[in-house]
Amino acid sequence: MNREKALRLVKEQLTERRYVHTIGVMEAAIELAERYGVDKDKAELAAIFHDYAKFRDKEEMRRIIIDQKMPQDLLQFHDELWHAPVGAYLVEKEAGVSDDEVLEAIRCHTSGKINMSTLDKVLYVADYIEPGRDFPGVEQVRESAKSSLDIAVIQAMKNTITYLLTRNQPVYPDTFHAYNDMTMKVKERKLT
Amino acid sequence: MNREKALRLVKEQLTERRYVHTIGVMEAAIELAERYGVDKDKAELAAIFHDYAKFRDKEEMRRIIIDQKMPQDLLQFHDELWHAPVGAYLVEKEAGVSDDEVLEAIRCHTSGKINMSTLDKVLYVADYIEPGRDFPGVEQVRESAKSSLDIAVIQAMKNTITYLLTRNQPVYPDTFHAYNDMTMKVKERKLT
Repeated sequence: MNREKALRLVKEQLTERRYVHTIGVMEAAIELAERYGVDKDKAELAAIFHDYAKFRDKEEMRRIIIDQKMPQDLLQFHDELWHAPVGAYLVEKEAGVSDDEVLEAIRCHTSGKINMSTLDKVLYVADYIEPGRDFPGVEQVRESAKSSLDIAVIQAMKNTITYLLTRNQPVYPDTFHAYNDMTMKVKERKLT
Repeated sequence: MNREKALRLVKEQLTERRYVHTIGVMEAAIELAERYGVDKDKAELAAIFHDYAKFRDKEEMRRIIIDQKMPQDLLQFHDELWHAPVGAYLVEKEAGVSDDEVLEAIRCHTSGKINMSTLDKVLYVADYIEPGRDFPGVEQVRESAKSSLDIAVIQAMKNTITYLLTRNQPVYPDTFHAYNDMTMKVKERKLT
């Protein structure tokens, strides 16, 4: 699918503000893809569609999570998490995106997961550092992303977990499994 | 087992400094047990023996974790976690403590777990707030422990997780699951 068609499809689903965010993620993802040797077209497609389900009705999303046998513990955690796996499903079904790597990057772009691919990490970090973001710690992640994608992912996850802790919010298990997985792998690489 | 015998057995296993810590935990645990309606003798016994295995040889602990079929993922995480489950095992085997609730409180006193009993929480918090402790945030947990054991547990867990994150250390899954479990239950209670 070319960029124009993808953007047109996604624009219908988003607010103007979220569309501007999407363009930022797309540009950041292309830059990271070039830097870290990921297929640029896949990074672009994943970025354009990553928030496709962001404004879907909560009940529709709940229904999809149940009917499509997605991890049911999603329903016990914040509904902010739902648009990622539901988005991957709808992007395939409604927009006809069929690339499994792209769909997987969309699926895990909010929570992270164990064994993230480089494309998964590119989308995760692009979503965190795109120019419209200005939360505490974002500058540090932008800097890290210039030299180490893994360190950038770890920092973004740490910030996310810390933010949830300070608000007494539960942390979706995939997120801390991803954090543990990434920190352990980086440590192993340093030791070897 | 009476206090004197228990203290004698544990003193042989500990450094002087750690023995003083143990006395502090014992006194804090008795106070919390009275406040939150837990059997004082069980709290005392659990507190006295909680660090029984603290200075055991790492290879001996590793061997026990393997031979006793404890969760094998312990071996991938910081060995600081090992003395708790290994201690519960040795306290039963060597010191003859047979009370399952006491042994379980010892077993989970470092990591926490889902569905902690009140005795588990009493030991967890006593270990965190005993007078010898002076890490950042301990005063807040001491204050909370006067009015809500659950809030004190959550704060202590948050501090522990945050500390590990700032040092890029992995977080043992039981700790995260415990934090999620406790925050969700406190939230539910507030809603009902």
